[in-house]
Order: sequence, then structure tokens, then C-alpha cells
Amino acid sequence: MSRLTNYLPIIAWLKTYNRQDFNDDLFAGIITAILLVPQGIAYSILAGLPPELGLYASILPPTLYALFGTSRTLSVGPVSIAAIMIASALSAPEISALGNPVQSTAILAAESGLIMLLMALLRMGGLVNLISHPVLTGFTSGASLLIIASQLPHLAGLKIPACGLNTGCYRDYVQGFNGVTLGIALAALSILILFGKPLSTLLKKIGLPSSIVTAISKCAPLLTVLFGTLAVNYFNLQNQYHVAVVGQVPSGFPILSLNFIHNEQWRLLLPSAAFIALIAYVESVAIAKVTANLRGEKILPNQELIALGAANLAAAMSGGMPVAGGFSRTMVNFAAGAKTQMAMLIAAGLLSVAVIFFTPWFENIPKTVLAAIILVAIMPLLRLKDIVHTWRYDRGDGIAEVMTLLGVLIFGIEEGISLGIVLTIASHLRKSSRPHIAIVGRIPDTEHFRNIKRHQVETWHSLLLVRIDESITFSNINFIEDFLNAELKQQPSIKHVVLIFTSVNDIDTTALEVLENINHALQTSGKTLNISEAKGPVMDKLKKTDFIEQLKPGKVFFTNVDAVKELTG
Amino acid sequence: MSRLTNYLPIIAWLKTYNRQDFNDDLFAGIITAILLVPQGIAYSILAGLPPELGLYASILPPTLYALFGTSRTLSVGPVSIAAIMIASALSAPEISALGNPVQSTAILAAESGLIMLLMALLRMGGLVNLISHPVLTGFTSGASLLIIASQLPHLAGLKIPACGLNTGCYRDYVQGFNGVTLGIALAALSILILFGKPLSTLLKKIGLPSSIVTAISKCAPLLTVLFGTLAVNYFNLQNQYHVAVVGQVPSGFPILSLNFIHNEQWRLLLPSAAFIALIAYVESVAIAKVTANLRGEKILPNQELIALGAANLAAAMSGGMPVAGGFSRTMVNFAAGAKTQMAMLIAAGLLSVAVIFFTPWFENIPKTVLAAIILVAIMPLLRLKDIVHTWRYDRGDGIAEVMTLLGVLIFGIEEGISLGIVLTIASHLRKSSRPHIAIVGRIPDTEHFRNIKRHQVETWHSLLLVRIDESITFSNINFIEDFLNAELKQQPSIKHVVLIFTSVNDIDTTALEVLENINHALQTSGKTLNISEAKGPVMDKLKKTDFIEQLKPGKVFFTNVDAVKELTG
Repeated sequence: MSRLTNYLPIIAWLKTYNRQDFNDDLFAGIITAILLVPQGIAYSILAGLPPELGLYASILPPTLYALFGTSRTLSVGPVSIAAIMIASALSAPEISALGNPVQSTAILAAESGLIMLLMALLRMGGLVNLISHPVLTGFTSGASLLIIASQLPHLAGLKIPACGLNTGCYRDYVQGFNGVTLGIALAALSILILFGKPLSTLLKKIGLPSSIVTAISKCAPLLTVLFGTLAVNYFNLQNQYHVAVVGQVPSGFPILSLNFIHNEQWRLLLPSAAFIALIAYVESVAIAKVTANLRGEKILPNQELIALGAANLAAAMSGGMPVAGGFSRTMVNFAAGAKTQMAMLIAAGLLSVAVIFFTPWFENIPKTVLAAIILVAIMPLLRLKDIVHTWRYDRGDGIAEVMTLLGVLIFGIEEGISLGIVLTIASHLRKSSRPHIAIVGRIPDTEHFRNIKRHQVETWHSLLLVRIDESITFSNINFIEDFLNAELKQQPSIKHVVLIFTSVNDIDTTALEVLENINHALQTSGKTLNISEAKGPVMDKLKKTDFIEQLKPGKVFFTNVDAVKELTG
Repeated sequence: MSRLTNYLPIIAWLKTYNRQDFNDDLFAGIITAILLVPQGIAYSILAGLPPELGLYASILPPTLYALFGTSRTLSVGPVSIAAIMIASALSAPEISALGNPVQSTAILAAESGLIMLLMALLRMGGLVNLISHPVLTGFTSGASLLIIASQLPHLAGLKIPACGLNTGCYRDYVQGFNGVTLGIALAALSILILFGKPLSTLLKKIGLPSSIVTAISKCAPLLTVLFGTLAVNYFNLQNQYHVAVVGQVPSGFPILSLNFIHNEQWRLLLPSAAFIALIAYVESVAIAKVTANLRGEKILPNQELIALGAANLAAAMSGGMPVAGGFSRTMVNFAAGAKTQMAMLIAAGLLSVAVIFFTPWFENIPKTVLAAIILVAIMPLLRLKDIVHTWRYDRGDGIAEVMTLLGVLIFGIEEGISLGIVLTIASHLRKSSRPHIAIVGRIPDTEHFRNIKRHQVETWHSLLLVRIDESITFSNINFIEDFLNAELKQQPSIKHVVLIFTSVNDIDTTALEVLENINHALQTSGKTLNISEAKGPVMDKLKKTDFIEQLKPGKVFFTNVDAVKELTG
């Protein structure tokens, strides 16, 4: 039973589910659904796809996530970052030449889902650790800039030339300029911005409960869509002023389909799918953790892989685009009072009603309104201030962050992420290859040993107490050897070298071989090598070798105090 | 002046050079030259090149190394591992199609030299740290097996079929079988093996000085070559029994040439040259360190890059093959009493005499004798016992070692090295992503805190003292968070969490953000987060942020004793 609950977390909360929970979830579900409709249409257009793919992605995938996911408030569905990654994958020449973006998208979703399930099977949830926060921030900021660049022209009806984003034939842009479109965009932006902080502050001041405030302020996207659509209909803007609209959206529930399976595009799309899976997983877990921490709930990375994998497979089979947890939507869901994934089940139900009955209403939504919604939604993801903070705190991380951002902008999305990961690992290796090494002495009248450069300490002229502040491995043993040799040359009176292993958590094969050489060289010149305060796991490993035997007359001391007592006595 | 000595280490030892040094170097130089002639011819044939390329590589390159190198005993010249790497590069279809292996070899040497000089310019000597000993051992063992496989057929005159090593058309082998060739090989192997350990032991027993013993035992290769050549000449074996011989070797000093420069092969050969440069550098420094440690001398990695780079450029310009420091030859040079690089200058001088006057003598050297010499020389590089040791001591290193060996055998030399490097880094990351974490208590009546699982210690029920045995980074902060959450769930009485930072040498951006979240969550549930025994560099970094401010009422304690006193008081 407990095993079943592990794999179907929905059982855990359904057991104690009550009327009050349902009321909360119903309210949150409606609010989230109201947000999902314009987001679904906007993000599928952002990905270069027909509008219905975002709507389909809002029905079955969140339902699957509700069954398998460990987050109670994560809102799985179409997200902007995944949308721009899909756009990038579809614009590759080999793929766009095939001329079937809908099928390619289904394959991307299926592959992402399968990759996540495979990762779950191999218990690779820890892979989330490969992407550091700076790389993630650099990536989302870069992707946000790409999205902004792709949406700004839509505000004034400018056409993106067929030659694509990165080729520089931007002069065609100006030809499509449309004053009416720009007017609608500015109106939409005003509503969206005013309904954000300004209105919330006002409503809170007049004493409305915060869930109601959230509900009202989060209706802004739907309101702008509504006003925009009404304006198009009433003034016949589409035909008279050439305002671009969404166009026909097929009605009815998507047909479950497996007929994308027999296809050769699979191999071509696999690398993009892998990146989408990685980012979808990492972003979703990061967002899920934010709300889980606030309520003391627990996110299980491997189970998240299963849930997101199932959600993406469901997206593939129901004609939707790849999905992930969305930051803004999850926050809205949480702020509106969602207690469990029932809220998302309700939202999915409402979406399916919308798909069956209301698609004709979507036809005249002006694209410029959707662009405005995307722009306002994307702004919080552009975290340039964070980059400054990171740069100040840790230079290596700062470089990784900036290079990831620039990589995304200059070379492309997947290249940017790869660059960031490589740089993080390189900086990690570089740091551990130049470890902090302190020569220590005893703080008088204590058993405490600290750096001679930072504290007033007692030292002994025949004794070199060296604290190595890092595990000793192939990447730093040469640095350590050089340090010791330099010290011994400066202090010829040294008779005993004591390596303090408080910070040494592992000694690898390379390091052990070099330590044996160092010991041999010290013995040849009549000195001894000693070890002090080695931790259990390190001692266990050393005892498997004859290193401790080789040290004699050097010794392994339990504490620095023991070492000083014996070697100076 | 001191700067000049840095760049030309030869000046340092020339200043104090005396008659006794010269006598020692003269003796060692003659012995090394005696070894260099058969090795030079054998290794160029192993590389699939005309015999003179190995001889040329023994003249100018060691001379350049003598000027710039920091090792006094390293013998730079043709080596077996580089030879098999050259063979592998030349056998690539695009290269072998060009039909000019001599020119390709010159380009490989030039590129390797330039890469080393570039690395020196960028002060990338530390790159040697990228290759761990297990990867190096796995690689040399794998390459040795490849060399053995390529030489065994020569012992019996079997022909390597034109289709290459890895394609399985081995049935043509049997056709070339030659009993006389096999007989010569067996005789050569007997001499080589008997002149090794057995003869040395005997000679030492009768009281000969060890340098003379070395000299006699190291003449074995020359003796076998001499006997083999005499047998071919006397019995006309070449024509009567089809015993394969070296063939004509052009006479005279190689012409300095730069005419390989204008060529399109450069791009094709670059990856192979990079691997040759990397391995030549890493192997040479490793060998140089062995002898330097025994005499208390110092090897400067960056200067070695300059010296080896210059040596390889010299090889390219004088028609030789790429060079590196050779293990067996360096050991012979050292054991024969070489004091400085003068020994190698003398050896190079002798080699140029050989090239000018004695090349006709090399024509009738039976190839089977050279194969026997290679086989005996390569055996010590096949360190299968080391692999067992590594496997027992450190599983991650063991896997890297075995996979590198298998990678070299199955996928090829460059692929094997790459695989090894990637696996070492992955295992490094994996280790640091699952750090050792100990809950500690105080050993009664001391200021010493140790793991509650391994020692009898005092603990306090409202206090959780956690020692994290690793720098806190993106790769392990999630693991640490999970550990803390699990402990807090098990022990609800905990009021204060103290993170002991004795082993924490760095906290990166990702880790800091998560620590802030952990602190926030603890505060929300009325607990505090504290830090104890943080090291200077870590505190310096934290002070740049408001993290310490955020901790309040949690604190940073100088020692664990202070923390216990205040938090339990």
C-alpha cells in the first residue's frame, strides 16, 4: 500500500481530502484555467504552432501529473521556455524542410517523456544537480531575451521575415507596421501592468482578502483577450485594418493518436528532445520545491521524473506540445489557495469544456494581445540583477552565468546550456585543483588549531602542521606536493610533517601514489610524514593499502594535540 | 640572469659542471646511444614509417630538450606509445589515402610542438592534472596490448594484411609463416630476457659495480641486432629464406626543412596531434618526476611544455617523428649514472655519427629482432596488477582505468583517452554530489567532536551538530538538504541546527541560495540555523552577502565548544 502511494501520490492526499480542501481547490482551479487559456494559445503561437496545441497540452498532461506528481501545487502545462526551445528545434533546416511541425512537436513531446521515464528507471533524478542555479538563471534570462525579441515585432504587426531570427534580414520588418495593432497592444499592456502590482496594492488597501485580490489581478490576461476580441469583432479590425488574429481553432476533444510513431524524424529530433527534457525537469523541480518548502511538503526527484515523463507522453498522444511546470501559473495556483492537484484536475476539466464548446470564440483573438501577455509574463524571468549578485559572490559562477546567457543569444539555446554546464564543471575542477592549504598552529590553552596567517598561535620549529582544505585527488595532488616542497625548502629545520586531514574526505588512487612518493622522499632526507585527524571513511580506505605501514616511523594521530605531544616531546 | 636561467635551465647546471660530471655523463650517454639506435629504428617501423625517422628524432629533439628542459636525466626521443599513436593517426582513411606518411608525420610533430608551446603560453601546465594515474595506466596498458598484437606476427614473419588491424581478415597471416624468422626471434628474445634480471643478478653477485652491470645488461638490444645482422649477412638469410630486413636507410644528416608547412593535411591531423601532445607531455612529466624526486630536483611543468614543444618542432624540421620522454631509456640513463642532460647531448652526437657513417650497417637488421626488442621493452608498461590494486582501493578509479583500457582496445587510442577523462570527471562529480555527512557529539572532557556512529560521545537533545565533509556546491546541496530534512523529521525535539564547516572550503552560489531557503524554513518552524568553525576564506565570502544577517537569531560560532555552551546554556 505504501509502495502504491509512492508511485501514485494522489492516493495520499485523497485519503484525507475534505469539503474545505475542495472549495479551495475549486477556486484556485478556476483562476488557473482562466490563465491557462490565453497562455496555452500564446505559447503555442510562440513555438510557431497552431493555437490548439497549447490548449491540448493543458488537459491530459496536468491530469497525468496530478496522478503521479509529488508537488501539490505545481501547474504542469505549456510554458514559455519550452515553447522557445520547441521553436528552435522546429526551425532547424532538416526539420522545417519536412513541413510538418505538428508531427515534429508530438515526437519532441514523446521523446522528452521517454527520456524522463528512462532517467527515472536509471534513478538519475540526481542529474538535476548537473545544472547549477547560475547556469539556470543565465539560461532563462537568455531565453527570455530571445522570447522578447521574437514578440516585440508582433506588437506593431511587423512580420518576422521568412529567413528566420538569426540571419539579419530585418529590413522587411518595417513593411508590416500597423498603427491599429500597436494601439491594441498598448491598451493590452496597460491593462496587464495596471492589474498587476498597482491594482493588488489598491485592493489590499480597501481590505479585500488576498485570495480574491489574486483572483482579480490574475484575470487580466483573460480580460485583455476579451476586450481585444470584442474590438476586432465590433470594428471588423481584421478585414478593415489587417489586424492579425489567431484564426480558426478546431473544435472538440483531441483524438488520442499513436500514428506519429513510425517516423524517421525521431533521430533528428532526439538531441533537442533531450535538452527539453532536461530543462523541463530541472525547472519543474525547482518551481515545485519553492511551494513545497513554504508548506513543508517533500518533492521526490525520481517520482517527478515519472510524473513529468507521463505528462509529456500524454501530450504527445493527445496532440499537445511538450509540457513542464510553469512558474507564474504555479504561483497563481498557490496564491489562489490550491491545496492539492485537484485544482489542476478542475482546471483541466474546464479547459476541455473550452476546447469542446468555445473554440469559435478564440478565432478573433488579436495576436498582438497574446504578444503583450507573453511579454508581461516573461519579464520576471529576466533576472539581470541576479547576475550582478552572482558575479560579486563567486566569480566562477558569475562567468558561467554570463557565458550561458551569451551562449543562448549567440549560438543558440542548446549550445548555451551545454556551454554553461561545461563551464560549471571546469570551474568546479579548477577550484578543487587549487585547494586552500593552511599552515596551522595551536591557539594557546586550547585544543584548537588555526591558520598561522589569521590567528595568534603557538608553533614548533621542527614541526610543520599543514591542513589541506580539500579532498586529495588527481586534480590537486601536484599542487599540494609543490606547496609542501616549497615550505620544506624555506624551513630546513622541519623534522616532521603532519598532514591534518579534517577537511580531507577522500584520497583517490593518483593522490595515494603521490603521497607514497612524498613519504619516500621525506624518509630519504631523514624526515617523517604523519597524518592527523583523518576521518573514518578515509582511514577505512587507507587501511586497505600498506600506506600506514610505509609511513613508519611516521604515524597516524587521532588528534593534532596527540601529534604535537609526541613529535615535540 | 635568473630569468634567463628559468628559460634555459642548461645554464644552471653548466655553471657548476666539472670533470667528474662529464665522466659520468659520457658513460651514460654512450649506453643510452647504444639503446637509442635499435629503439629508434624499431619505433619508426612500429609507427609504419621508414627506419631513419626514429634516428633523426634522436638527434635534434633531445638537443633542444637539453637546452630548455628542467629534468636532468629525461631521455627525449622516439617512444613506443607515441609510435602507436602515430600509426593510428596515419591509418585513418583520409590520411592514408594521401600516401605520404613521412610528410604527415612531420605535420604531427610540428602540430604537437605548437600545441605544447601554446599551452605553455597560456600557462596550462596544470592540464596535466586532467589525466589521473588510473586513466594513464589504463591507457598505457591498452596501448601496450595494441603494440604487442601488432608485433607478435612479425616474430614469425606473418604479414599484417592490408585491410588493417581491426577488420578480422586474419587468415592471410598464416601464409607468410617463416620458420627461420621465428628461430631468429626466439634467439633474440632469449638474449634480451637473459640479459635482463638473470644476468644483472649474476653480475652483481660477482661484485661488479652497479653502473657497469647496467651498462652490460642494456647492451642486449644492440647485441641482438648485431647477431641478427651478422646471421643475415653470413647465411644470406634475406634472399635464401625470405627473412624480412629493415632495408636501405639513407645516409647523412637530415636536411632541415620547412617545406611541409604549406599543406591542407594540417586540419585533418590536428585532433591526433592534440592527443599526441597531451600524452607526450603527461608521460614525460610523470617520468621526469620519478627521477627528479630521487635526487631532490624540481620539474617545472610549464617549462617542460616549452622544452617538449621545442623538441617536437625540431623533430618536424629535421625529418623525425614526434618525441617524448621514454620511460625505459630514462631509467637506463639514470642508472648508468647520468648527472645532467650532457649525457643526452653526447648520445645525440653519437647518433648523428651513426646516421652519417653507419647507415649501411642497418640495412640487414632482421625486422623480427626489432619486434622482439619492442615486445621486451613494452612488457613493463602492461600493468595489469596495478588495475587490480586500483579496483580494490577506489572503485570509481578502477572503473575509469578498465574502461580506458577497453576503450583503447575497442574504439581506438584517442577515444579511449577521452572516455577515461570523461569517466574520471564524472566519478569526481558523483563523489562530491554524495558527500560524507556526520552527526557529531563531543568526546567527553575534550574539545573534540566526532561522529556519533564511530565514537562514544556526548550529545544534546535540542541540538543537531552536523559536520558536512565536503565543499557545498550545486552538485551536493540537494543531498545535504534531504539529509537535514530527514534528520529533523526523525528528531522533532531539535531546536538548533549547527552546521560544522571544518571541511567546507567553498560555498557556491547555488548552495548559498539553498542554504538561505533551509534557514527560512527552519525559522518558520521556530528553529535556528547556526554555523561553527567556518574557515577564513568561507567567512570572507559569506560576509559579502547578508546571509549571516539572515541567520539571526542563529549565529556563527568560532568553535563547536562555544556553540554547545551558548545553545544549551
